[in-house]
Amino acid sequence: MDIAKLREAHPDHWLKAAAIRTLTLDAVAAAKSGHSGMPMGMADVATVLFGRHLRFDASAPHWPDRDRFILSNGHGSMLIYSLLYLTGYKEVTIEEIRNFRQSGSKTAGHPENFLLDAVETTTGPLGQGIANSVGFAMAEESLRARFGAKLMDHHTYVFAGDGCLMEGVSQEAIALAGRQKLGKLIVFWDNNSITIDGPLDLADRTDQVARFKAAGWHVQSVDGHDPEAIDAAIEAAKASKKPSMIDCKTHIALGHKAQDTSKGHGALTDADQLRAAKEAYGVSWGPFEVAEEVKKQWEEIGARGREDRVTWEARFEEQSERRQAEFNRVFAGEAPKKLSATIKAFKKQISEERPKLATRASSQKVLEVVNPIMPETLGGSADLTGSNNTLTEGLGVFDETNRKGRYVYYGIREHGMAAAMNGLALHGGVRPYGGTFFCFTDYARPAMRLSALMQVPVTYVMTHDSIGLGEDGPTHQPVEHLAICRATPNTLTIRPCDTVETAEAWEIALTSQKTPTVLVLTRQNLPTLRTEHKSNNLVAKGAYVLAEAEGKREAILIATGSEVEIAMAARETLQAEGIGTRVVSMPSMELFAEQDEAYRRKVLPAGPVRVGIEAAMRAGGWDRWLLGERGRESRQAFVGMTRFGASAPAEELYEKFGITAGNVVAQVRALLG
Amino acid sequence: MDIAKLREAHPDHWLKAAAIRTLTLDAVAAAKSGHSGMPMGMADVATVLFGRHLRFDASAPHWPDRDRFILSNGHGSMLIYSLLYLTGYKEVTIEEIRNFRQSGSKTAGHPENFLLDAVETTTGPLGQGIANSVGFAMAEESLRARFGAKLMDHHTYVFAGDGCLMEGVSQEAIALAGRQKLGKLIVFWDNNSITIDGPLDLADRTDQVARFKAAGWHVQSVDGHDPEAIDAAIEAAKASKKPSMIDCKTHIALGHKAQDTSKGHGALTDADQLRAAKEAYGVSWGPFEVAEEVKKQWEEIGARGREDRVTWEARFEEQSERRQAEFNRVFAGEAPKKLSATIKAFKKQISEERPKLATRASSQKVLEVVNPIMPETLGGSADLTGSNNTLTEGLGVFDETNRKGRYVYYGIREHGMAAAMNGLALHGGVRPYGGTFFCFTDYARPAMRLSALMQVPVTYVMTHDSIGLGEDGPTHQPVEHLAICRATPNTLTIRPCDTVETAEAWEIALTSQKTPTVLVLTRQNLPTLRTEHKSNNLVAKGAYVLAEAEGKREAILIATGSEVEIAMAARETLQAEGIGTRVVSMPSMELFAEQDEAYRRKVLPAGPVRVGIEAAMRAGGWDRWLLGERGRESRQAFVGMTRFGASAPAEELYEKFGITAGNVVAQVRALLG
Repeated sequence: MDIAKLREAHPDHWLKAAAIRTLTLDAVAAAKSGHSGMPMGMADVATVLFGRHLRFDASAPHWPDRDRFILSNGHGSMLIYSLLYLTGYKEVTIEEIRNFRQSGSKTAGHPENFLLDAVETTTGPLGQGIANSVGFAMAEESLRARFGAKLMDHHTYVFAGDGCLMEGVSQEAIALAGRQKLGKLIVFWDNNSITIDGPLDLADRTDQVARFKAAGWHVQSVDGHDPEAIDAAIEAAKASKKPSMIDCKTHIALGHKAQDTSKGHGALTDADQLRAAKEAYGVSWGPFEVAEEVKKQWEEIGARGREDRVTWEARFEEQSERRQAEFNRVFAGEAPKKLSATIKAFKKQISEERPKLATRASSQKVLEVVNPIMPETLGGSADLTGSNNTLTEGLGVFDETNRKGRYVYYGIREHGMAAAMNGLALHGGVRPYGGTFFCFTDYARPAMRLSALMQVPVTYVMTHDSIGLGEDGPTHQPVEHLAICRATPNTLTIRPCDTVETAEAWEIALTSQKTPTVLVLTRQNLPTLRTEHKSNNLVAKGAYVLAEAEGKREAILIATGSEVEIAMAARETLQAEGIGTRVVSMPSMELFAEQDEAYRRKVLPAGPVRVGIEAAMRAGGWDRWLLGERGRESRQAFVGMTRFGASAPAEELYEKFGITAGNVVAQVRALLG
Repeated sequence: MDIAKLREAHPDHWLKAAAIRTLTLDAVAAAKSGHSGMPMGMADVATVLFGRHLRFDASAPHWPDRDRFILSNGHGSMLIYSLLYLTGYKEVTIEEIRNFRQSGSKTAGHPENFLLDAVETTTGPLGQGIANSVGFAMAEESLRARFGAKLMDHHTYVFAGDGCLMEGVSQEAIALAGRQKLGKLIVFWDNNSITIDGPLDLADRTDQVARFKAAGWHVQSVDGHDPEAIDAAIEAAKASKKPSMIDCKTHIALGHKAQDTSKGHGALTDADQLRAAKEAYGVSWGPFEVAEEVKKQWEEIGARGREDRVTWEARFEEQSERRQAEFNRVFAGEAPKKLSATIKAFKKQISEERPKLATRASSQKVLEVVNPIMPETLGGSADLTGSNNTLTEGLGVFDETNRKGRYVYYGIREHGMAAAMNGLALHGGVRPYGGTFFCFTDYARPAMRLSALMQVPVTYVMTHDSIGLGEDGPTHQPVEHLAICRATPNTLTIRPCDTVETAEAWEIALTSQKTPTVLVLTRQNLPTLRTEHKSNNLVAKGAYVLAEAEGKREAILIATGSEVEIAMAARETLQAEGIGTRVVSMPSMELFAEQDEAYRRKVLPAGPVRVGIEAAMRAGGWDRWLLGERGRESRQAFVGMTRFGASAPAEELYEKFGITAGNVVAQVRALLG
């Protein structure tokens, strides 16, 4: 690579790009950790994209109609931090750059959406950003259809590396984007032929251009260091009605001794080599310095979109007040005021009708009353629509022929669906929910963790939640997945026991602002247990007394979901024997743990023996409630699973694994005996 | 589809294929659940493959050099059960077919490798079978290089549906197979254009032929109901040096009223429609019947490979005794006898040298002594070789130029790696291990669950196991992953505290026969704490007293991995204050739980206050050991994580989150106070 030639060919461009490169080198050297090579390789593409195309205003990071920029190869975080600093975002000062990767700084090792407003999505786990971007682009299409191009009309740009493209989730993403013809999605592939282990060829020879074409993408290949070629490719990509991939042939760690090597991927900290690189760039800036003129040019870029933004605001003001309020409401993620009354009315009706329904069917019933009053919901399923009960009448199919449709056929792509839902929620203006079998939480898991970390209120509709699904057998029967969800910070797991609790669970999910919700729902029918209408949301307490002991309270049965029915049946037998038995329904351990100690003690007083009942592993958080929070409370037992399930009709499996009222009764007797 | 024409064109073939179809219809109708459509659609391909190509002997399902057949779209399990019954495998009687999906039967909803010898791998979670197959094919290549083509020379055949190909893991698998030029891997795509939600087009328009080509595959398209075309395609696929994909255009539920519809995908149970389908097939067999002549033809197919197998056995007998013994040893998955002595000698040396090493580096040191004496190990990493420390000197790179190489560059494909490792282990003859960051357990999770369910002893080398990895921040810092692994049945999680424990952990992993092991290893350096050599494997007990209290025992500190050092430091302070403090190292909760109660009580006696220390969520199983197994034991506290981590140098993070000796001391004082 002849750096001098690059400099001479485009001197203005060169210095702007050099600023990204030198800030990256300086920050990584100071932190003694981080990834230098990627920002150095992609600086030219970034400079052209931000300099000439990206519609943004550094003074208004929240402008709803800005273009979205996603750094899927998030380890190259100094690229985005450099750009934010250079273009004048207030939140990234030179001090933040100096404190790259240090405690309390906003310039974390990987870009975190909860630390910086201008970081659209947290990236780092590879492939997630490109998969999020599908959701961003879908949100834009959906909102454009709803609010018109005057209010919503922007692009989603993504940088992705070989790591992103090797991760399987990228295939789910690009196939979905291709099917959906997301024409305003433009991905730049940082094609540098290097991974951490060495030359890419060690592990991969995929023809990425052909692969994207096969998925229905518009594809171009360019020299990633030629600003005019990059510019032309972006123009062509914008003109395409398909999603676009621009294959940018780049040199990792351009201009550094480690260029084009796997060493260039990581932290370049050698002071002499850093100096030599700056010399090659033709700049004499000190550490964390950028020539004033260059900084000024970048700040002009940061202000380039200001007029667009102001014009947009004027257009927004022209809308009716009602329309403005609705737009603001959905972007604020606020539920409509009438949601609460709707849920209450639904609960009242159900407590009277007392249907016997699977909670997956109850969930659909709730959606049937909620979807019509919440036009921001965008539902879907990973090819299990009829099983997850996620589709309600009149939603319409979201696809290239109908962007007003509110139901997405995600295909057999649990991971891609979850990542797209993160993107949908992060974009703002839509509230996504999506379904699959609870066991396939496994497939969606990397994106579900990011829902929690990024604090996005997506709703996972996870049906077929235990051995209760029956014949499909252990590959489909979750036993450890409640433990997984409950152990994950900022993830709300709710396993309702009947239609009323399902409605309350949905109300919590739909009003959540910063926490994803996992609704854990049965395949099998369950009776209505909440037969007495309460307007309060009892699920919000996490656990509550569903049936009080008659006579002296000798036993407390604690159960969730489908096992609450078993607890109630056991109670009946025990009471008949004169053993006073309380049943506690515990749809959400997380919410119960959030209650004050007085409430927790009221629901689970010391003294009576305790039996926990859940068709899952005890490791899913049971010890705390059974052994007692202070470890001195009660004799206890757990009725649940201790191994993987099996293939047979559901009722036989409950018998086989001893999850029966009879066994619960026997356990209580033994504990009292 | 003109069924009559198909019948007339190939009458013999037709009846054999019809037997698969009618048995499927009968079994699903009797079970009132299951998937009829796929076996009915792929019966012709299966008949040609089993009838003319698959090298197998129904009387010898364990023959090591048999061709492997993998049903990746495992919901179509009746296809494989029909074939096993028809060809005369003893384990699948007509009674088993009648008991399809019933309690105690071997014919489970999805094919389970632990129920039937002839089921090579458990399938059902989509995409897993095709990803396993890459490991099967790699094992064959590796063993052929090691033992010669006389002992190892077979194909791996896979049926995969649209679901398999939509799952991201399929991309990881086909890209890896393409890169590795696995010429003996042949995949049949059941191209029926239908998924559960409806026409495939709802969710996907991928050009699969182009996609496989882009990954370096040999690709053909055929009419999946034309036996001669299928036969010719298989011949061509066998001749190719690349992995082969045969695009079989098929009709789901062929000949049934539900043909070519999404209804045809699931359970077809209507008796009249079943009769009509049989009529269309031109057969008058009653339920679970097959014409004697047809059954006989199938049994001849089942015996077709007998001569091959006998000849193979003769060749095997010609090998030296030593070579035979070695072949048998590796296929039995037995560690070499000298492993135990090697580990002991290593431990002795380490306890004297007392290095300060990250356990990831300790792990490499162990592999350096183990790999030379265990030629069956096949290591690898998902592009983190230098970080996972998985490569040892002289292993050589496994690729198309060197099948004797024992190190696989899996690429940035954690999921594909884990699934391939399952295939490697299931094939037999090799013992795979592979590394990534512990946090990316998330990506590998669906395959890791199957390692556990299928009882395959693969080893996951999971490094960077906590906030101790530092600056990379919360996306890379596991906090809930110990909980995930520990909650999963038949998964052995070991988090060693120093080099000696790491060696013991590896010994357990390498001698495991039916359980996968997750080694949870640090990035940061740790001192040697096991300074007194014990020849016994203490990790095998799960937990043990590392340092006894001096004087009256008032406190017990329980810690794992990198936090044992913190416990030891806290103990020093506490002892100096006269507080007798025991330190329990607990590298594996699962192994400790397996010990008898007397041992558990000895290690964790009632009375002293307890503090658990682990840089992870308390939900990872701590309540049981802290609250006490009987719930009445002790005052306790936990020092660990309660949220996601952050980006900063590791030492600062330990301070920030209070995981310090000082805090442990303070907790003990408060509990005693």
